[in-house]
Amino acid sequence: MRLRNKPEAPQKIASYPQYIPDQPEEWKGRWSERFENKQPLHIEIGMGKGQFVYQMAKQHPEINYIGIELQTSVIVSALDKQVEDPQPNLQLLHVNGGELTQYFAENEVDRVYLNFSDPWPKTRHEKRRLTYQTFLAVYENILIPNGEIHFKTDNQGLFEYSLVSFSKYGMLLKQVWLDLHQSDYEGNIMTEYEEKFSSRGNRIYRVEAQFNAKK
Amino acid sequence: MRLRNKPEAPQKIASYPQYIPDQPEEWKGRWSERFENKQPLHIEIGMGKGQFVYQMAKQHPEINYIGIELQTSVIVSALDKQVEDPQPNLQLLHVNGGELTQYFAENEVDRVYLNFSDPWPKTRHEKRRLTYQTFLAVYENILIPNGEIHFKTDNQGLFEYSLVSFSKYGMLLKQVWLDLHQSDYEGNIMTEYEEKFSSRGNRIYRVEAQFNAKK
Repeated sequence: MRLRNKPEAPQKIASYPQYIPDQPEEWKGRWSERFENKQPLHIEIGMGKGQFVYQMAKQHPEINYIGIELQTSVIVSALDKQVEDPQPNLQLLHVNGGELTQYFAENEVDRVYLNFSDPWPKTRHEKRRLTYQTFLAVYENILIPNGEIHFKTDNQGLFEYSLVSFSKYGMLLKQVWLDLHQSDYEGNIMTEYEEKFSSRGNRIYRVEAQFNAKK
Repeated sequence: MRLRNKPEAPQKIASYPQYIPDQPEEWKGRWSERFENKQPLHIEIGMGKGQFVYQMAKQHPEINYIGIELQTSVIVSALDKQVEDPQPNLQLLHVNGGELTQYFAENEVDRVYLNFSDPWPKTRHEKRRLTYQTFLAVYENILIPNGEIHFKTDNQGLFEYSLVSFSKYGMLLKQVWLDLHQSDYEGNIMTEYEEKFSSRGNRIYRVEAQFNAKK
């Protein structure tokens, strides 16, 4: 997405450590202490402005959510939502999605959401796609055995690539939607991006993929 | 497809045993003898009027093809093509695709093609879909280890179902096309059905799926 420069963003983020922990690595293996309960933990990697994870948290108080976003000027939009109407089961992480093992212990996460990740369409950028095998290895490490990735995108090329990448990694494709908004899938929460591009007629693709229980 | 009654069809089929063997079970394990060479064997299950398999045979003389079709009134159209301009590397089989182990030995087939198979959209008819697990077990039996299924369809529901069915069976999705005719895939041979429905704007989906080498 196009990034607006927001010079006030870093200071704002630093002002709300109760929502965006300033020493997130200290909570590795201890997120249930921070949430003060033992609920399942679902994380969204690359949450952007956070509409999806915020609404999920609001609608599913029985689950803990962590929204992860590296871009300072974007994560503040998610922070704004949380400041305005705080959800106790939501935390925000201002870190790089590729370094998740610094912030989550093995088996600590129950589900990973990837929504409208950057497609990196050039072959030489394959390794940057969040469904590339090195990222899958990171997700597998922090997920429970048989943990799942729920992924949606409007990018046909990234979706084709990701189905194959999941399969090559030995994951099970549990369900596939090739036109989510025309399907009978219930409870879809749209991201900001999804609202914009589906209104232009773009199809939304979705898949639920499960890791093999090697552990 | 709509079937025209063709009262002359059974007699016509019986008149060309060199193209449609009248005792096909006798060739089980011996198809290379019938083709009089040791070329790879690719089969299409439910070939309909046979345009795909006939053109493939014509363009790939280094591969042997067998087109399989149960409907008498349809297989005669494939026979007509073969009678008019015979391809030595093509045979036609007038049998039921679910009984393939009667006609092929283990490891005898190198590739299975499924094109625009009947979608059987009702859940209670799932077992009739040619990508249902019991059919996959038949294909696995007659295919070489790491044998592949190449499947295309314009039916979104059948394609979604089939990706999951292949994955649940432990197959690898090697490549997926969500809009074949807009892709850079080369050498696509269209079926009669594909010509008709793609000209109406339907997307064509395609997947290459590989069995795990358990054998």
